[in-house]
Amino acid sequence: MTVRVGVYGATGYTGLELVRLLDTHPEAQIRFATSESAAGTSLRASSPLAPDLTLVSAADAPLDEVDCVFLCLPHTQSAPIAAQALARDVRVVDLSADLRIDDPDAYARWYKVAHPAPDLLPVPYGLPELGRLRLLGALCVANPGCYATAILLAVVPLARADLLAPAAPLIIDAKSGVTGAGRAPKQNILFGEVHGNLSPYNIGHAHRHLGEVEQELARAGYDGGPLIFAPHLLPTDRGILAAVYAQVTDLDAAQSTLRSAYADEPLVCVLPPGELATLAHVVRTPRAVLSLTPVPDANVLIVMSALDNLLKGAASQAVQNFNLMFSLPETAGLLPA
Amino acid sequence: MTVRVGVYGATGYTGLELVRLLDTHPEAQIRFATSESAAGTSLRASSPLAPDLTLVSAADAPLDEVDCVFLCLPHTQSAPIAAQALARDVRVVDLSADLRIDDPDAYARWYKVAHPAPDLLPVPYGLPELGRLRLLGALCVANPGCYATAILLAVVPLARADLLAPAAPLIIDAKSGVTGAGRAPKQNILFGEVHGNLSPYNIGHAHRHLGEVEQELARAGYDGGPLIFAPHLLPTDRGILAAVYAQVTDLDAAQSTLRSAYADEPLVCVLPPGELATLAHVVRTPRAVLSLTPVPDANVLIVMSALDNLLKGAASQAVQNFNLMFSLPETAGLLPA
Amino acid sequence: MTVRVGVYGATGYTGLELVRLLDTHPEAQIRFATSESAAGTSLRASSPLAPDLTLVSAADAPLDEVDCVFLCLPHTQSAPIAAQALARDVRVVDLSADLRIDDPDAYARWYKVAHPAPDLLPVPYGLPELGRLRLLGALCVANPGCYATAILLAVVPLARADLLAPAAPLIIDAKSGVTGAGRAPKQNILFGEVHGNLSPYNIGHAHRHLGEVEQELARAGYDGGPLIFAPHLLPTDRGILAAVYAQVTDLDAAQSTLRSAYADEPLVCVLPPGELATLAHVVRTPRAVLSLTPVPDANVLIVMSALDNLLKGAASQAVQNFNLMFSLPETAGLLPA
Amino acid sequence: MTVRVGVYGATGYTGLELVRLLDTHPEAQIRFATSESAAGTSLRASSPLAPDLTLVSAADAPLDEVDCVFLCLPHTQSAPIAAQALARDVRVVDLSADLRIDDPDAYARWYKVAHPAPDLLPVPYGLPELGRLRLLGALCVANPGCYATAILLAVVPLARADLLAPAAPLIIDAKSGVTGAGRAPKQNILFGEVHGNLSPYNIGHAHRHLGEVEQELARAGYDGGPLIFAPHLLPTDRGILAAVYAQVTDLDAAQSTLRSAYADEPLVCVLPPGELATLAHVVRTPRAVLSLTPVPDANVLIVMSALDNLLKGAASQAVQNFNLMFSLPETAGLLPA
Repeated sequence: MTVRVGVYGATGYTGLELVRLLDTHPEAQIRFATSESAAGTSLRASSPLAPDLTLVSAADAPLDEVDCVFLCLPHTQSAPIAAQALARDVRVVDLSADLRIDDPDAYARWYKVAHPAPDLLPVPYGLPELGRLRLLGALCVANPGCYATAILLAVVPLARADLLAPAAPLIIDAKSGVTGAGRAPKQNILFGEVHGNLSPYNIGHAHRHLGEVEQELARAGYDGGPLIFAPHLLPTDRGILAAVYAQVTDLDAAQSTLRSAYADEPLVCVLPPGELATLAHVVRTPRAVLSLTPVPDANVLIVMSALDNLLKGAASQAVQNFNLMFSLPETAGLLPA
Repeated sequence: MTVRVGVYGATGYTGLELVRLLDTHPEAQIRFATSESAAGTSLRASSPLAPDLTLVSAADAPLDEVDCVFLCLPHTQSAPIAAQALARDVRVVDLSADLRIDDPDAYARWYKVAHPAPDLLPVPYGLPELGRLRLLGALCVANPGCYATAILLAVVPLARADLLAPAAPLIIDAKSGVTGAGRAPKQNILFGEVHGNLSPYNIGHAHRHLGEVEQELARAGYDGGPLIFAPHLLPTDRGILAAVYAQVTDLDAAQSTLRSAYADEPLVCVLPPGELATLAHVVRTPRAVLSLTPVPDANVLIVMSALDNLLKGAASQAVQNFNLMFSLPETAGLLPA
Repeated sequence: MTVRVGVYGATGYTGLELVRLLDTHPEAQIRFATSESAAGTSLRASSPLAPDLTLVSAADAPLDEVDCVFLCLPHTQSAPIAAQALARDVRVVDLSADLRIDDPDAYARWYKVAHPAPDLLPVPYGLPELGRLRLLGALCVANPGCYATAILLAVVPLARADLLAPAAPLIIDAKSGVTGAGRAPKQNILFGEVHGNLSPYNIGHAHRHLGEVEQELARAGYDGGPLIFAPHLLPTDRGILAAVYAQVTDLDAAQSTLRSAYADEPLVCVLPPGELATLAHVVRTPRAVLSLTPVPDANVLIVMSALDNLLKGAASQAVQNFNLMFSLPETAGLLPA
Repeated sequence: MTVRVGVYGATGYTGLELVRLLDTHPEAQIRFATSESAAGTSLRASSPLAPDLTLVSAADAPLDEVDCVFLCLPHTQSAPIAAQALARDVRVVDLSADLRIDDPDAYARWYKVAHPAPDLLPVPYGLPELGRLRLLGALCVANPGCYATAILLAVVPLARADLLAPAAPLIIDAKSGVTGAGRAPKQNILFGEVHGNLSPYNIGHAHRHLGEVEQELARAGYDGGPLIFAPHLLPTDRGILAAVYAQVTDLDAAQSTLRSAYADEPLVCVLPPGELATLAHVVRTPRAVLSLTPVPDANVLIVMSALDNLLKGAASQAVQNFNLMFSLPETAGLLPA
């Protein structure tokens, strides 16, 4: 079986990773890749290791020739393309934030803009390890945010098992490589600004990924306290490490719950006791890696949750979702067969 | 007035910074600098920007020619030299951990070794902004640890004002540049291991700096809950950024307390509301910089506390202490007169 | 004596360094600093360690209140401001390329644009160690390019002493930190592009700094062969290291010539035999450091020439020139008095 | 066909890459991996992404169970193991320098130590693109040095075609990531020393790789002048970029010769005119990438030669050689089939 695919927004960091994955995916065939600024040139001109595909503008993309599109576009630009594709019976994996939040009002609160296509909502949230059923055969999937993936993998199993101390604040201190901020030139992500620096941003209860995190935690029965989220920009190119400080009602149960949750997952790994997750565990891999450190006196479990923001936080998770949508083996194109 | 000084352990990262500061200090005169491995060579051979001082071994250091020594030695090696110096009426700024903890048993618990010179204890803890009185004219001062300085600056004023929520865990997620791990070759601090990585270590309630932090918090009347401390090794050379998540009883009072505490301090700065502390605020400066982010729903104050681990976390704080010991202006040699 | 100064283009990397130097210069007083994009804000908002100066737009700069202006502006924008200032008897240190090349046609060839103010030409070329006389008391000085400074320091003394093999190509392989490319956002200087990379650019006989290099070499009597120049963008923020491969007629004479040339210079240092210049010798210092490695079989002298592109390659050299123009000690504001 | 292999010295940077490649090689099966310091532990403890192999000491390696061994050992330690293996009819790919130089006296000159096993010499030099015939079915191959590979790929075709200007010095300015210096802790490769620095080392005619380079150039009929080689340590983890400045007798012929030499090579690529080789072209790939920049006035061809020091400069080239020795497709395990 060959699934014909198109990639919108191929010259950004996520788009480049996605094209690379799809280019070697045994069941996918890339029919087009779009870029507004680089239409007419080869993708290789945008990145020396990319496949030699000639880019087209989105308006010229031959939607009729594909079975599925991946949208690596800015929010508000993505949903309209999703609507177009779905109207032509082309399936959609949307890597933007547009389809992640079921409630358009909540979207408007977090993104400060009216939802561009509320008729499309709700769409299954594509974090396979936390719920594959809705993804199998789905026509459209909302690919999660990178921070959201790291956080939800650490917290959802605890919420489902009702192991979080009621009303205790959930503190998440996260650190991301700079590619998480995209490839459009901005002064704060210049090499001269980032090298030698570490900078928190949007800390407290402000980062947009909290919208989808809170939605998915609510779905999991979360009854803990307020979320406190402090993201930081790291002086490295890729990778997220989130430290989740969870007050739990039973430290042993919390650990065994997380271990069981991912015991059979090929792409989420809980390290053995005593080992700590680092970026070196995950960068350039499609895996998330968790480590568990109990602090007995405080009934706090420190979950370190690591992933590559461009892969499990974006492109490889999109491929997992694609595989589930087309009933392919979930790790096709990601792990050796 | 000229104070004649000697520096033990001059070829490490802290020693090099200290020699650089003392070399341009208007009232200090370096009489000797020691190194066991590099004795007989110039300090410049250890670092191209260092002063051209010929190193001697500690055994050959002319203690009789100095008024004060700075000890940049490993713990257990430092206290015996301190004892020697004090016996000869030479004052001591000890940058090791040996003299920071008043109770030798607590030292033994944290450092897994018997205290090398318990007769010297207690010694004033040299964090001037939190207590200068004991440092003025002192004969011997224990220079605080780098993480400890960052944490205590953020928490002590809150503890003194009784603004911390009783029994709530105090969560500290800290990130340090690699020079914090010293200059002795070890595999985990090789460039090839650190570049592109971020790695937590000794997390939970395990890092040795907690010993001095808990002692000083107790002195400040701390009645909050257990400390949870997660240090991380950053892919940069210098700087510490500690995120302190403090549950407080009054967010406004907590902020005004911290602002007042440092309002007149030349070397500790609290940023205006809305600005966040970063490493770029502090690296290669003798200042600590704090920022305050209240999270109203959770009654949590996020204090970002930034400093240069080699300066306010070590060498420049040692110079502050030295200045106080010899009744010099506290910022002599650190800020323009 | 206090010289009142203004800085045009203060928010770029060079402007920030220059303001920092002038702010602590014992004889300079900053009266204004300009920025078009950030007018009305504090310079500190552009960089956390900058002085707290309120920026004005160039049109609002009070030229009548200053004795000297420093122009950290893009080429073609700089010369017209220089003309304005000179017309009002305000002296000028131009850090742009506009006034470095005496011949407007040569300027047009290298910069692909007509010279914006040919009437101002020629202007003394401000590389003090290679010719201070024209700078003493000058009304206007062209501050050299960063690469040009590194190259000329290595080659001019050899050319003057006629020690270069006639007609032999002069090969210069240079590497620069990313701040050399400025602070205006461009994709190629994003952290995500530069981290882990090394990229040559404009190699051969193409880089614009060759214009001024060839002019100054001609002035020095250079009769070697064609220049071959290969600059590279390094994954670091600042510093230039240029490897100059010079075929010489007498290796011993070449070395002693270079040593003598700088024997009494406080800001140019030739390392002793066996030591090699590195970026660590120069970054964040106002000095250039050279090392000499003879290759006897080939009659080639390898001169490694290192400097900080923002300091000796720009801002601190501008201060040297300023000092000479106003008959101040040349290292005022750069080295301890 | 399955070839059973063993890897000596698996915990160094090269060993780790090699194990990773062999672990997914379709025709190789790893039977053992050795380490003296980590014997008894899993290789994964040495690197989080490594296969979970239990390490043995070299003395315990079951040589009888393998068809081929790869030696990632320090020079002088490697050749004795090679001799042992060959005596038992086990083939050898030696990644050390021991077998690269045919003449034991030349080895002794470059390595300042007597050759440990002169009876094994000569051994085919394993740079497939410059001579596969001797490698096909070979029992023992000397895997080239990383710098040597980068240089020889650029120069040998020119030497063979007699296009180098007689007696003109050949200047090579090369830059390498820090993993090229190995994984054994040394102060000069600590993160704190390398970050923000660029340091030349062993420049002139001093680096040991010149021994093998000169041997292979002589074999190619080189009649140019002396080699001048200036390696630099870059602030990045991996990758080599060598700038070769070759005076040639015919610029067009030189370019077409290099293009033809690699026109059909899957693992050496010459970029189209106008593009420059960078580390981003090669890092984490098994390819070398060359770019050609003619400088007409000087008859100099600048060849930029880039490769990953751990792959085409070591481990992936070893796999190429292994494939040729066992008559497997040369890119097996390196490129998709």
